Amino acid sequence: MALNQKKILIVGGLAAGPSAAAKAKRTNPNADITLFEATDTVSYAICEAPFAVGGVIEDEKKLVIFSPEKLQEEKGITVKTLHHVEKILTSDHKIIVRDLRSHRMVEFEYGKLIIATGAAPRRLNIGGENGRNVFYIKTREDTLNIIACLQTEQPKQAVIIGAGFVGLEMAEAFRSRGIDVTLIERISHPLEGFEQETREQVLRELLDNDVHFVPFTTVDAFQQDNTGKVRHVITNRGSFECDIVILSLDVEPNINLAKEAKIRIGSTGAIVTDERQQTNIDDIYAAGDCCEVKNIVSGKPMYIPMATIASRTGSVAGENAAGGRAVFKGAIRAGAVKLFGLEIAQVGLGSEEARQYGFQVISELVTSTSKVSMMPDSEKIVIKLIVDRRTQKLLGANLFGGNGCVLRANILGVAIQHNMTVDDISHFDLIYSPPFSPLWDPILLAANKAKKNLNLNPKLKI
Amino acid sequence: MALNQKKILIVGGLAAGPSAAAKAKRTNPNADITLFEATDTVSYAICEAPFAVGGVIEDEKKLVIFSPEKLQEEKGITVKTLHHVEKILTSDHKIIVRDLRSHRMVEFEYGKLIIATGAAPRRLNIGGENGRNVFYIKTREDTLNIIACLQTEQPKQAVIIGAGFVGLEMAEAFRSRGIDVTLIERISHPLEGFEQETREQVLRELLDNDVHFVPFTTVDAFQQDNTGKVRHVITNRGSFECDIVILSLDVEPNINLAKEAKIRIGSTGAIVTDERQQTNIDDIYAAGDCCEVKNIVSGKPMYIPMATIASRTGSVAGENAAGGRAVFKGAIRAGAVKLFGLEIAQVGLGSEEARQYGFQVISELVTSTSKVSMMPDSEKIVIKLIVDRRTQKLLGANLFGGNGCVLRANILGVAIQHNMTVDDISHFDLIYSPPFSPLWDPILLAANKAKKNLNLNPKLKI
Repeated sequence: MALNQKKILIVGGLAAGPSAAAKAKRTNPNADITLFEATDTVSYAICEAPFAVGGVIEDEKKLVIFSPEKLQEEKGITVKTLHHVEKILTSDHKIIVRDLRSHRMVEFEYGKLIIATGAAPRRLNIGGENGRNVFYIKTREDTLNIIACLQTEQPKQAVIIGAGFVGLEMAEAFRSRGIDVTLIERISHPLEGFEQETREQVLRELLDNDVHFVPFTTVDAFQQDNTGKVRHVITNRGSFECDIVILSLDVEPNINLAKEAKIRIGSTGAIVTDERQQTNIDDIYAAGDCCEVKNIVSGKPMYIPMATIASRTGSVAGENAAGGRAVFKGAIRAGAVKLFGLEIAQVGLGSEEARQYGFQVISELVTSTSKVSMMPDSEKIVIKLIVDRRTQKLLGANLFGGNGCVLRANILGVAIQHNMTVDDISHFDLIYSPPFSPLWDPILLAANKAKKNLNLNPKLKI
Repeated sequence: MALNQKKILIVGGLAAGPSAAAKAKRTNPNADITLFEATDTVSYAICEAPFAVGGVIEDEKKLVIFSPEKLQEEKGITVKTLHHVEKILTSDHKIIVRDLRSHRMVEFEYGKLIIATGAAPRRLNIGGENGRNVFYIKTREDTLNIIACLQTEQPKQAVIIGAGFVGLEMAEAFRSRGIDVTLIERISHPLEGFEQETREQVLRELLDNDVHFVPFTTVDAFQQDNTGKVRHVITNRGSFECDIVILSLDVEPNINLAKEAKIRIGSTGAIVTDERQQTNIDDIYAAGDCCEVKNIVSGKPMYIPMATIASRTGSVAGENAAGGRAVFKGAIRAGAVKLFGLEIAQVGLGSEEARQYGFQVISELVTSTSKVSMMPDSEKIVIKLIVDRRTQKLLGANLFGGNGCVLRANILGVAIQHNMTVDDISHFDLIYSPPFSPLWDPILLAANKAKKNLNLNPKLKI
């Protein structure tokens, strides 16, 4: 049984899986670790795909962080690509795997199993979606196909569906290549879940950069020509011509394998684990985009498919599977996107979301500058603080504008994660140096203004 | 007596004084506030002086944040420039002031008095120091004189004495104007109190930008020509030719006025206050560079003459003098400087200093990148964490390298200020987005490496 316990199998090779494998090996160098991946690629930097498409990263091959061979040689992991895990036999501690080359089914025994099956891009399931110029952004194949399409077909007009992070990054990537971009969104503004002020600024930035933003629009069909290329995107607001289509909707956790094995699925639709990333089934861990995590601010489970969380939960699962005692304490949700000249960041809860969780939400919006305003490259920074009136704690923040929004968002993120009040933040001893910040950093201005306007700290009068 | 209580006098108009005046007026719009300043300038952005000298800020007038008239009109403060406060009669609640225009002495009665006398640049007190091309960087007059000297005399060679923040910024300012720079320093490296690794990189950056750095050197005399200009700086390591000399040594608190009034002076040589900025004498507050403050990390008083602390303690003193209840909880000491292409930041204690305070210091140095390394403008970032072995708390950090060092230093500063351990930091939910950070932010890498190498979190083995 000792040997058995050291045999660690991992299902999924994009982000959480390789992270788990590497950490397990570091934790116990004697562990026998095998990673199964259904595609031919592991450890791929899919978040960088828009930058490879836009040409910021010239060589797409750099996105392959570890080839299967390198993961094997440098980290001591057995890697089986083009292997699809079909079933978990929990009582036998076995998995059944289909070799996609030979189509043979093989059984593998595990001491510990880590499920890192990730997420799949949501599809519209409408006619024409299989067109050969319709792309998702989820795998290396997607990235390579888009780049190939740019090179061989030189598209003039792109339609992007879904104005989240990836949709915005792809809009910039295509504009930087001189391609007309129409960005179709189901709701009124880009970046659902961000604050209204942020979303309006993002919309302005899109318009300033000649992106045609089409709100309140749903796609009914993709009209293909006789070569199988989509030429028109048919919506409730008319038809849009295109040479290339990007579907950048949200993602859905891949849970079928887990569900069939009676692994518990949470209210969010993703796998439930404890803070050691253990599922409800003995010796089975899960990590990455197939799992829900604890939202530190609300205390509730939340589905946050982000690379940071994937690699961290992967690392925790790997360490624990190899006999360590690591914990993932949860996430505040911290995200950012660059859009042309604009930095945009969100940490913690949005104000609507916070209200839904039952907080008494008050908020404060402050406009400041990235550095002393007399410095020639000083840029505008807007901060919105979202505060719980009862506890005076910071629940969330949006930042947008010039240089330093994103790193400043992290400062507020730490405050959120550590339960700080607006008063705590107003006492932060932050750096002042003319090339980097104004005398009162925007964060201090925001906290002080919130204290004053929200009567968070009533004054004693004489 | 009610009227008397609302009469607030403020001594000193550079940073803490105007901050106190403005905050007092906001706290109690009926307060009668008079600010005395011995020069003809108030509210001057002296930290920006090197950038005005270097031409980054083209118009020096922008450094005047508030003219006396503007402070009077917009903030409702009576401003008396060219008025030198000579004496405090504490039992009479009066001050004696010399009008430097008329040379008359006038008495003013106060309800509350705020001392914001600031600091003076340390002088060498050696022959020739009064040369007409020898400058300090402390007042508007200094800035204007340096700019005038550049314009009229077009110096080719500068000698800067003292390689602290201002000395480094002035070296860059002169180099950007094509002036040869010799930087003389008493000790081995620039930036005393920073970590050795940081100081070595700073030295490299100076050499890479053709600054002649002369370590272990003390100045014996300034040799003037017959026009009163210093032509040679005579040191223990020979003589250095020059057309202009900058003395950028440390500063000393201006405490004579307070001392004579029996206001308590601390072990640091600066004025002692409580956390409401009250001195030991009834109705007298003090703020800014003439005061010591509590160092949050050591719990001990420390002299930290910084603009952030001046404006914050000024604000606290002003609010309290006007009847409010503000507190200044202390400082961690957070500073940064840009030197050519290098960002350099320090938060909290240095390792030597921490040892002197009795901490069991252990440290970890991590080299990472400002963003995903495959992004073309990714830059190297080095972080040194200084940790107390007993409590595993972060005591201090140095960061140097490319874009984002300074704002990342603030993230660690918040951790220091809030007593966090290295393990706490390793759980930070920080943003990942390719244009802004690597998947594991340098801060997380540093915390994780420290946990591992310093055995801060012993693993449970099976």
